[in-house]
Amino acid sequence: MAIDVALQLELEDLYSRYASLLDDGPLREWPDLFAEQCLYLVIPRDNYDRGLPLAIIRCESRGMLVDRVRATQETIMHEPRYLRHQITNVRVVSAAAGRVDATAHFSVIEVLPDELPRILSVGRYVDVIHRRSDGALEFSEKRCVYDSVLVPNTIVYPL
Amino acid sequence: MAIDVALQLELEDLYSRYASLLDDGPLREWPDLFAEQCLYLVIPRDNYDRGLPLAIIRCESRGMLVDRVRATQETIMHEPRYLRHQITNVRVVSAAAGRVDATAHFSVIEVLPDELPRILSVGRYVDVIHRRSDGALEFSEKRCVYDSVLVPNTIVYPL
Amino acid sequence: MAIDVALQLELEDLYSRYASLLDDGPLREWPDLFAEQCLYLVIPRDNYDRGLPLAIIRCESRGMLVDRVRATQETIMHEPRYLRHQITNVRVVSAAAGRVDATAHFSVIEVLPDELPRILSVGRYVDVIHRRSDGALEFSEKRCVYDSVLVPNTIVYPL
Repeated sequence: MAIDVALQLELEDLYSRYASLLDDGPLREWPDLFAEQCLYLVIPRDNYDRGLPLAIIRCESRGMLVDRVRATQETIMHEPRYLRHQITNVRVVSAAAGRVDATAHFSVIEVLPDELPRILSVGRYVDVIHRRSDGALEFSEKRCVYDSVLVPNTIVYPL
Repeated sequence: MAIDVALQLELEDLYSRYASLLDDGPLREWPDLFAEQCLYLVIPRDNYDRGLPLAIIRCESRGMLVDRVRATQETIMHEPRYLRHQITNVRVVSAAAGRVDATAHFSVIEVLPDELPRILSVGRYVDVIHRRSDGALEFSEKRCVYDSVLVPNTIVYPL
Repeated sequence: MAIDVALQLELEDLYSRYASLLDDGPLREWPDLFAEQCLYLVIPRDNYDRGLPLAIIRCESRGMLVDRVRATQETIMHEPRYLRHQITNVRVVSAAAGRVDATAHFSVIEVLPDELPRILSVGRYVDVIHRRSDGALEFSEKRCVYDSVLVPNTIVYPL
């Protein structure tokens, strides 16, 4: 498959804005990267690979993502922390009729006050992206498939 | 040196497929990214930088890579584990007459059952890539130069 | 904002050379990536986000960067160590009249002799880049904003 240069760089830019909004904010703009009708899953790799549906976070619309952000900022009790995403190896799996299937590898490093940075999670994104009427790309489906078998009890912010 | 946009993105795509096949499979397709006559080395940085040839893995053909994958899946006793590669900062060092010399930085995070993710290895790839008659790129030489002085006793899968 | 393909790849190449010079050398060429009149800061995120100026490293010219490299290699007592940078998610924030404002995410893994690799630092670069008269890009301002609240006592080499 020949590489669509413009599409590849647009996708990478979408993932970079995703990482930037999660790590450096404003977090409330993060849901804007998704379609109104969307699917956002955080799912362990063992379940995903076996076709099991159980996910630890499941949101089925942009509105639910907005709620999730609000909960993170207002409701959930948690220590302050910083996250740092690195999203790499973005790859178009297929592209047709305004729909792009793409994958990427991610790592999330977590920094708690007075602690050294540690790996919170690594894995891959398995995503479906559509083009809006204004030309911008948005996620219509996003599966954050994390490799750890051990479920970290500290996933506060989105992956 | 002016950047060859198409070549740069083709290379990045090659590295992304490399990472994807190692981490998410199918692993048996990983040797297809190499030329039939190829060189694949996993070599500690101290040796590489001093010009010492000793490598901990040395394969001299695609057939040997196929054997290595079979050994990993069938022969070598090891705990199940997941790997996650992030291959970044892909850079063309020189390009001429169908041969590309390129480098990239890599990290490999390992996830063992019931353990938190940990860094298995970091380093750089020092590679030679050729173009096949069908236009696709393939590795004719790949040196996985890892930074750790301490040799991890857990390198089961290719770096 | 439409993506400027050539600029994006030139920027990524600049960051890749930056990473390569720091990790694999020659370190003495690293200051060449900066303008003669430049600003280089290593600053904790808490200070940067609150607009506080205090930085742990502050260099205000390429000459000071050259001095810093010399100190690292000749004056500062430190254990030998290897670093591995991964610079990802490079993003143009604005571009006009030969000035580019860009951000990127970075991680630095440190390898000490006989120890396993560990995370030294993660964070983001907040940079200003200009185009030289010969067409090459150079950093005129570079802020290495690191996420850790805990200041590592082992920052010997530049971030």
